[in-house]
Amino acid sequence: MSDAVAVALQELVLANRIMAREGVIDDFGHVSVRHPQDPGRYFLSCSRSPEIVTREDLMEFLLDGTPVDQRGRGVYRERVIHGALYQARPDVGAVVHHHAREVLPFTVVPGLMLRPATHLASVLGHRMPIWDSQAEFGDTNMLVETAAQGASLARAQGDNACVLLRGHGANCAAHSLQAVVFIAIAMRDCAELLLRALPLGTPTYLSDGEIEITRELHLKGAPLTRAWDYRVARAGFRGI
Amino acid sequence: MSDAVAVALQELVLANRIMAREGVIDDFGHVSVRHPQDPGRYFLSCSRSPEIVTREDLMEFLLDGTPVDQRGRGVYRERVIHGALYQARPDVGAVVHHHAREVLPFTVVPGLMLRPATHLASVLGHRMPIWDSQAEFGDTNMLVETAAQGASLARAQGDNACVLLRGHGANCAAHSLQAVVFIAIAMRDCAELLLRALPLGTPTYLSDGEIEITRELHLKGAPLTRAWDYRVARAGFRGI
Amino acid sequence: MSDAVAVALQELVLANRIMAREGVIDDFGHVSVRHPQDPGRYFLSCSRSPEIVTREDLMEFLLDGTPVDQRGRGVYRERVIHGALYQARPDVGAVVHHHAREVLPFTVVPGLMLRPATHLASVLGHRMPIWDSQAEFGDTNMLVETAAQGASLARAQGDNACVLLRGHGANCAAHSLQAVVFIAIAMRDCAELLLRALPLGTPTYLSDGEIEITRELHLKGAPLTRAWDYRVARAGFRGI
Amino acid sequence: MSDAVAVALQELVLANRIMAREGVIDDFGHVSVRHPQDPGRYFLSCSRSPEIVTREDLMEFLLDGTPVDQRGRGVYRERVIHGALYQARPDVGAVVHHHAREVLPFTVVPGLMLRPATHLASVLGHRMPIWDSQAEFGDTNMLVETAAQGASLARAQGDNACVLLRGHGANCAAHSLQAVVFIAIAMRDCAELLLRALPLGTPTYLSDGEIEITRELHLKGAPLTRAWDYRVARAGFRGI
Repeated sequence: MSDAVAVALQELVLANRIMAREGVIDDFGHVSVRHPQDPGRYFLSCSRSPEIVTREDLMEFLLDGTPVDQRGRGVYRERVIHGALYQARPDVGAVVHHHAREVLPFTVVPGLMLRPATHLASVLGHRMPIWDSQAEFGDTNMLVETAAQGASLARAQGDNACVLLRGHGANCAAHSLQAVVFIAIAMRDCAELLLRALPLGTPTYLSDGEIEITRELHLKGAPLTRAWDYRVARAGFRGI
Repeated sequence: MSDAVAVALQELVLANRIMAREGVIDDFGHVSVRHPQDPGRYFLSCSRSPEIVTREDLMEFLLDGTPVDQRGRGVYRERVIHGALYQARPDVGAVVHHHAREVLPFTVVPGLMLRPATHLASVLGHRMPIWDSQAEFGDTNMLVETAAQGASLARAQGDNACVLLRGHGANCAAHSLQAVVFIAIAMRDCAELLLRALPLGTPTYLSDGEIEITRELHLKGAPLTRAWDYRVARAGFRGI
Repeated sequence: MSDAVAVALQELVLANRIMAREGVIDDFGHVSVRHPQDPGRYFLSCSRSPEIVTREDLMEFLLDGTPVDQRGRGVYRERVIHGALYQARPDVGAVVHHHAREVLPFTVVPGLMLRPATHLASVLGHRMPIWDSQAEFGDTNMLVETAAQGASLARAQGDNACVLLRGHGANCAAHSLQAVVFIAIAMRDCAELLLRALPLGTPTYLSDGEIEITRELHLKGAPLTRAWDYRVARAGFRGI
Repeated sequence: MSDAVAVALQELVLANRIMAREGVIDDFGHVSVRHPQDPGRYFLSCSRSPEIVTREDLMEFLLDGTPVDQRGRGVYRERVIHGALYQARPDVGAVVHHHAREVLPFTVVPGLMLRPATHLASVLGHRMPIWDSQAEFGDTNMLVETAAQGASLARAQGDNACVLLRGHGANCAAHSLQAVVFIAIAMRDCAELLLRALPLGTPTYLSDGEIEITRELHLKGAPLTRAWDYRVARAGFRGI
């Protein structure tokens, strides 16, 4: 295994634990990273909850979801979410799929918008589309399981950092694991803030210029590293 | 003791601990499993809070609530809830009675409905009746203690997964302990979501077709196992 | 020291730890027990937060607040709350003064009522008066420090289980420590429920008959013991 | 190192840990103390999250933000917040900059006021201004990084205990670390209370006289010490 792959896998275990520790993912949801040396592959855990994922659970997949070395391990039914995004977006290096509790209201109340109202939420970007499986696929089991569903969802996300799934959850994408973890937590925090603020008045959201300048600052360099170090320390290294 | 009984008892201790760890049951509330080889009996803890229930606390009861081997242990006053459901519903293999904080508002605000708005909440099914002890029994101590009260409550629940008790709590029923634990947590999560969403607009609930297909998926096979493994790991094995 | 006193002191340490563990008391607030053999005295910690109170911190007081054996320890400025209630109410054996976060809104929003809507909340009783220091004493430091303030507050409480203090907190009183701990937690839980329910509709409160019958059940015997055992287990015995 | 400096640094590590333990600061935010013997200098951690700050991370700065002994350590970009306040306010001995979740709604909803409604919140004082970087500086990265921004913010705070930053967070200032920690926690608690109370009615706020008298009581002597001891015990001494 190359050093780059070893580092990616180590970070992927940590990203799993952080998503659990920070309450973004509980029993369901998953996080992946693109193969650092082969853009046609990505790494994702076998079918386990992120809180208990270890290095041995990580598997390698082709972008169409075929496991490279399954060894009998179960796989996430929704791994097409990851493959379809890596296919559609060469700039994306890591993906989180989650059902964060604070975000869910924004997936079920029509017209309720999740927009950046604080500097840290700037990483959510200018627009957050919502994808409804019902529109294109009618009554389903509500999972994203087929290539057609994955492609439809990736189209809906477009070049945005996040997309909401009606009655289900959300996806976040970024160039790196550290960045996508930052975005997923900022999404949850922004949702929590708006749930509190909206009953009391109309919030002042960030201006377009503020979003642009502040996002640039937070997804690069020191803030990303400071946040990552903090979250690694909180999540701990049990079983890693 | 047969292997099947040993497995059922082990799972019952875990189910007690999970209900406590996930905040569904605190000091009051209880969880039972039907005897795997004698449908006329069930297992339930003696009168202790689920967080501290151990293997030694588990007791065997006839469906009318008579303890088979009491050995001086105190019994839950409301065990008729369990027996009446096992009597009325041959398909039911496990029952949870709880007072989850997020669910309580739906038991006290007339007309407030707890309906599935997310894929995981599909396991709550199409309808959740509410039972009010006042209607049939007038002023009481609000517990479900008599055979008549147990039968009335079981009738109200009908073939639904859950029933609400006015000003009191809720019951969940399913074919297995793993399934009823899944349902109880989904009920709490759905209530939490609606408490947040309702002040901000009218949620889009699952369609009848979505409920049917998605419930089928979640109460069988991999999702149930993944959730159970996660919750066992979180609850830990202290004192088991 | 008599056995009765030893038991009372042991329970008082536990009650302190429980109030902290359950989030009813944080840095400020206190809990006391009447001397089991001398109704003219009571026990209360020296000036420490309940989470870190140990057996050595417990002090004995006369009902007027005079410490029997101070040994240089600091005393709570508001201990008159306890003495005044023991003076006015021979039936009271234990008192909790707290600022539970969920209860505070009911002390600052005029007309907002904290009434039992669930069976466990029946222990709050039929009426919960509110005392406003401003009415009788004008601008003060808002603490209950003088004999006149203590007597005024005890009069406001009357024979009720609880009284609210405007912009400050609440007092609970009962015949025993186990009962007053039960009431304080039920008060917090009832407040939490109403904060969630009130924005969504008008709750159905317990009928007068339900309050009477259900309160009687919960403040005596098995339910009280089950709840106490559970909370002792959760609070732990660190440093006791 | 003088004894006074050693005590200040020890308290500064504790203040960092307390702000993290009590949920006032998470990944971003910081706390500083003025040099006890040289009013032209202050101490602040290098660029780390308060939960993991140790004695070795503390650095000494001139009021203009120049590190006295950098030794390659990264510095907070927003340290000008601290220097500008020490410059403008000779009475200030310690500063907290935070993004407490409960406080954020008051920074994004125009006209929403954070005013003392309980005795403990009296330490927030009579007025809490809000500073909007947009007004004077237009679209920025929303951080307070330049001398001009620091001075503008200090002017907005004036002689108040706290100032809100639109879409960002808040600053608290006081004569000592123990006092500023007390104020930051009271600010968070007051915000939490108002978020709960405002949807249910118009709160009764403290009178001007109550604020004055009660603030005086809480920022001096026994209450401050009791709260500090409690929070040190809760935060623990790991790694200190």
